[in-house]
Amino acid sequence: MVLTTPFTRLFGIEHPIVSAPMGGIAGGVLAAGVSNGGALGMIGGGREQIAWLEREWKLARENTARPFGIGFQTWAVEPATVAWAVERAPAAIMLSFGDPTPFATMVRAAGIPLLIQVTGLDAARRALDVGASVLIVQGSEAGGHGEGSRGTLPLVPAVADLAGDTPVLAAGGISDGRGLAAALVLGASGALLGTRFQATPEALITVEGAKALLDASGDDTERNRILDIARGAGWPAEYPARTLRNAFLDRWRGREPELLADLAAAQQEYRDDPHAAPIWAGEGVGLVTALESAADLVVRLVAEAEQAIGRVSSPPA
Amino acid sequence: MVLTTPFTRLFGIEHPIVSAPMGGIAGGVLAAGVSNGGALGMIGGGREQIAWLEREWKLARENTARPFGIGFQTWAVEPATVAWAVERAPAAIMLSFGDPTPFATMVRAAGIPLLIQVTGLDAARRALDVGASVLIVQGSEAGGHGEGSRGTLPLVPAVADLAGDTPVLAAGGISDGRGLAAALVLGASGALLGTRFQATPEALITVEGAKALLDASGDDTERNRILDIARGAGWPAEYPARTLRNAFLDRWRGREPELLADLAAAQQEYRDDPHAAPIWAGEGVGLVTALESAADLVVRLVAEAEQAIGRVSSPPA
Repeated sequence: MVLTTPFTRLFGIEHPIVSAPMGGIAGGVLAAGVSNGGALGMIGGGREQIAWLEREWKLARENTARPFGIGFQTWAVEPATVAWAVERAPAAIMLSFGDPTPFATMVRAAGIPLLIQVTGLDAARRALDVGASVLIVQGSEAGGHGEGSRGTLPLVPAVADLAGDTPVLAAGGISDGRGLAAALVLGASGALLGTRFQATPEALITVEGAKALLDASGDDTERNRILDIARGAGWPAEYPARTLRNAFLDRWRGREPELLADLAAAQQEYRDDPHAAPIWAGEGVGLVTALESAADLVVRLVAEAEQAIGRVSSPPA
Repeated sequence: MVLTTPFTRLFGIEHPIVSAPMGGIAGGVLAAGVSNGGALGMIGGGREQIAWLEREWKLARENTARPFGIGFQTWAVEPATVAWAVERAPAAIMLSFGDPTPFATMVRAAGIPLLIQVTGLDAARRALDVGASVLIVQGSEAGGHGEGSRGTLPLVPAVADLAGDTPVLAAGGISDGRGLAAALVLGASGALLGTRFQATPEALITVEGAKALLDASGDDTERNRILDIARGAGWPAEYPARTLRNAFLDRWRGREPELLADLAAAQQEYRDDPHAAPIWAGEGVGLVTALESAADLVVRLVAEAEQAIGRVSSPPA
């Protein structure tokens, strides 16, 4: 069995997997590792400065000869940064969270495949209207920021029906080969994984963060705005973030108005708490039980997905 | 291809599908239709009176010779009602929402397979401890009542890993054969569908309700407690319900404290609004586009699931 899909054909790659462009976490070494495994690696441009991007771009180039891409937070990124990326001609540019219209023309004019992340049907229609090459369909199970109102399983087929010949990838809650197989049978051409690729030696996370991911169950995450408010992150209110629970969240859960009412005190409390910083994690985190290199992980995910499909195609007698 | 699983073998049925025991909506005719299609039909005992149950039980018996079951809301059902069901020796008894311990012994002692619905890992552990024969793993996408914090896609494999040889079924957001196929590759032995079986001529819903289900998109649902509070339904706070949006919800969304503060006025407003009553719907409602008989629906779901798996097993060259 070979999991060839419209997405793998579009990029000339082996496996229908993309690593999420996690801002500041998905650097060039991770992107290269994922691509070396036969999937599509992504640098997490987020809203990083061009100096950071230059360095990570160079690291990716040094570590792989295969195609990789770069992703940005649409609401925050500067046009000059997207222009910088377009000049480098990555294999793909991905835009998430916000109106992609201002950048879509620039990316498409350069002939670069444009991946647009969507979290509902209206956003999917808008992304198709601006010429997305691929829709990334993000369910509320996803770690990090998102809109948070739709589950991956029912959203993917609904968007696939809308998208016609435009490939869609499933994102949110996928951390093993069973989830990848589910994405494919739901009508997606592959899956985008974030949380799972954080638990690799190549990801730019702390040792403590990696350990927390390995220890957590899928019941240990929550989505809200508390940590973004406390750290002054500037994220728009419509994109709460899913993280592991921590003691700061336990103290402030459901009390956003109070947090905002005495923001300076809350921000001091946040800075004074060494364990308050967000550890981004989706609901699939419970399926993450070991660190493994990005390339090995890609190969294992595909083997597991093939097993899951094979088990159902030919059930035991 | 035949979608035989540990679940179909346990019940000696053809197809790995169960109709949700939707209280007051899943009567005997629907249960019989589902079972006649080769799946496991369920009567929605909810917290109905025994007179209703007697009637629906008789209707099911008259309309099928195949196995069917009955389900209850654990927090609300009277022991005498469960005892009544046990005496009738249904093919299965399903318990949802609440501690199943008081009833599990009675059901198991009678040798009746016990299906317990769970919405997270702790609940799954408790259900296994009390001897569940099958776990129904309900994600937050589901229509009607639920706990609402976990998505179906990542929760199913996590519970399947816990459950070992105990079969699990996926529930929440599954309305077509792609969703059924996803359930199977995720490690479930089948799927439980509610919203989809509401859109059958056999379901006990109004013409207006059926039309609303056919017209709705998956973005048109929400989960909260507003309608339960307004109609005085008595549901515990931990089980908010997913319904279609309506004008009453638009007026009260996010204002539960105010609703409770002048409950009499809100309840009068609810009674005066002919369109305020809940139309239970999961996020898979957008995939529901036509009424069809329950037995035909079962057969179509299985054919679609087989196609979805076949498409991925042997992708086009």
